[in-house]
Amino acid sequence: MNNNQIQIFDTTLRDGEQVPGCKLNKSQKLNIAQALDNLGVDVIEAGFPISSPGDFEAVAAIAKVVNNATVCGLTRANKKDIEVAAKALEKAKKPRIHTGIGTSDSHIKHKFNASREEIIERAVEAVAYAKSFVDDVEFYAEDAGRTDNNFLAQVCTEVIKAGATVLNIPDTTGYCLPEEYGAKIKYLTQHVVDIDKAILSCHCHNDLGLATANAIAGVRNGARQIECTINGIGERAGNTALEEVVMIMKQHPYLNLNTNINTKMLNNISRLVSENMGMPVQPNKAIVGSNAFAHSSGIHQDGVIKNRETYEIIDPADVGVATSSIILTARSGRAALAYRAKNIGFCLTKLQLDVVYQEFLYLADQLKEVKDDDLSHLLENSKINHLVF
Amino acid sequence: MNNNQIQIFDTTLRDGEQVPGCKLNKSQKLNIAQALDNLGVDVIEAGFPISSPGDFEAVAAIAKVVNNATVCGLTRANKKDIEVAAKALEKAKKPRIHTGIGTSDSHIKHKFNASREEIIERAVEAVAYAKSFVDDVEFYAEDAGRTDNNFLAQVCTEVIKAGATVLNIPDTTGYCLPEEYGAKIKYLTQHVVDIDKAILSCHCHNDLGLATANAIAGVRNGARQIECTINGIGERAGNTALEEVVMIMKQHPYLNLNTNINTKMLNNISRLVSENMGMPVQPNKAIVGSNAFAHSSGIHQDGVIKNRETYEIIDPADVGVATSSIILTARSGRAALAYRAKNIGFCLTKLQLDVVYQEFLYLADQLKEVKDDDLSHLLENSKINHLVF
Repeated sequence: MNNNQIQIFDTTLRDGEQVPGCKLNKSQKLNIAQALDNLGVDVIEAGFPISSPGDFEAVAAIAKVVNNATVCGLTRANKKDIEVAAKALEKAKKPRIHTGIGTSDSHIKHKFNASREEIIERAVEAVAYAKSFVDDVEFYAEDAGRTDNNFLAQVCTEVIKAGATVLNIPDTTGYCLPEEYGAKIKYLTQHVVDIDKAILSCHCHNDLGLATANAIAGVRNGARQIECTINGIGERAGNTALEEVVMIMKQHPYLNLNTNINTKMLNNISRLVSENMGMPVQPNKAIVGSNAFAHSSGIHQDGVIKNRETYEIIDPADVGVATSSIILTARSGRAALAYRAKNIGFCLTKLQLDVVYQEFLYLADQLKEVKDDDLSHLLENSKINHLVF
Repeated sequence: MNNNQIQIFDTTLRDGEQVPGCKLNKSQKLNIAQALDNLGVDVIEAGFPISSPGDFEAVAAIAKVVNNATVCGLTRANKKDIEVAAKALEKAKKPRIHTGIGTSDSHIKHKFNASREEIIERAVEAVAYAKSFVDDVEFYAEDAGRTDNNFLAQVCTEVIKAGATVLNIPDTTGYCLPEEYGAKIKYLTQHVVDIDKAILSCHCHNDLGLATANAIAGVRNGARQIECTINGIGERAGNTALEEVVMIMKQHPYLNLNTNINTKMLNNISRLVSENMGMPVQPNKAIVGSNAFAHSSGIHQDGVIKNRETYEIIDPADVGVATSSIILTARSGRAALAYRAKNIGFCLTKLQLDVVYQEFLYLADQLKEVKDDDLSHLLENSKINHLVF
């Protein structure tokens, strides 16, 4: 694998689908899995096969149809979970079992009532057992974000010996700051024995709004896989948003980190997931929100009309959005008014613009947005000549 | 001022309100301004007075009623804008004029067709003129994120000489990575002459999902004000979310950075703004999304039922949310089922739980969520005894 290539591991169908209200039926899951495969993700986490009969069937169906991506199933660190996942993944071209256990003191004590030694033992057993079914075994150290780095490195060393190919270092509670998460990844690259036999993976939660920044800190410090979801959905405040990390790497070429994602498909897949899950994407969501490329303040509109790059760092076409929009509101300026008037066939002189602009502001103070119809009405009342095309 | 105190500058009513669809009327603006004052923000940016007659009136009305916070009005770097803002702020107990100009080469060339020297001249004139009306003058170096650091330091040095009390360093296009933005702030603390006469302010946009991380990088490197909005609304993909930066500082006491915000009011003010603007908050929004404290996967529910802190780093009560929720879906486990059954008065033995759990999973595979009524129906059909209270 190219050393600067970042694997995109999508968990929309597992961490995303487990969210209140996000449940999908089998045919919806198949549609989304195929869209993810076309998008170019490297790994699709299709579900948690033992969790319910419906989820088992969905994972098995996805395993059958996906052509390019690795198909992954989640398990806990026990034989039954792993056997069921292996069964669900039987037909996958590239199957991966994702198994693991909590490693923070809080998880060891409150969830497992165990000792650190017992946790390592259970982790190693699970990885070795999964390895008896598939070559590609990912291990997650749950709550790694709050796990002591030295113990985490020990766990990672032992599971690599047992055959793990990927080490997932989740910030399960979304607590880490980027410097801290980056430093954790760096520590592991330096202290895990035979670390070159596996890749490190970032799985970050967004409880403090830092899931994207943390994942980027992870790959800048040596991780080579990011676990993420479309629209950033996922347990509680969600996961790293796929569209955000992919566009950060694309827009910052000096990072020298690449993905296989066809970014032009991002907007469509965002809608597909949102509609199927019935989960709205807020208008100010980065990259895929309906306002992400909409300009309404006069200062910004003026700049964008003169030169798009004054205010936009991403060409909307690069993420599958037709064009930036110039929205007319009471915060719009003369440049935007003239631009939108011209779009509907009115060419204003400077003098006309001054007069119409004052009338426009009074109207705009009453309305959320001045649409083409309102504008046309206003201009006709002002006796401005319509252009003849 | 305490050196570790971070000023919270809320621009919900200016950068937020200028967004397509977010327009508010005067009485809505007054309500929100009073809620922000009660929340404990240090500065309320009330609007851009010259932009429309309605906005002028709203700023003037807010200036009159706000008791504690500084009230701020935005202007461009020209006399007319500044005069109108000064007039709108006349009745404010603590007025601030926020003036500025683009400083990046892209803005200087495409927006102003000017030279760097002319930009400095206009910046200094604007600050000096604003200073003739009010003591507290904030200067913004628009597109500072893409401005050469050396030139930015020169501009800052000159506007401090002219009387600026706050230097706003906006990442206008949301392009910076946290390391880069933090390094820019650090550079300014080291290279601006008489920097102790002003405070540096972070104003970050979220185009790549990094507005929160960038603002935190800013204050860790010496900035002492964060410009932000409720729910992260704002131009395009929005601004730094107030609730996120405030909770990051609160949950990471070792940063030793404090704010005056009463965090218990965060959930209510998020709803107030969302409802008045008609702008939905996505369920997976950090801190204030409806799912931010909802748990639905079996693994997580089991952990939370045993000990809240296993999966939650924030006590929901700290941000005004009554309690965490345990949602029943096909990804829920036995512990959650038993917990929710008990809540509605059914006490299950281990044997009963095993039986009911299988029936529950078949039902849950059909439904988005299993609510109390569905559960009660299922349990009654299974002939489980209802507890007698």
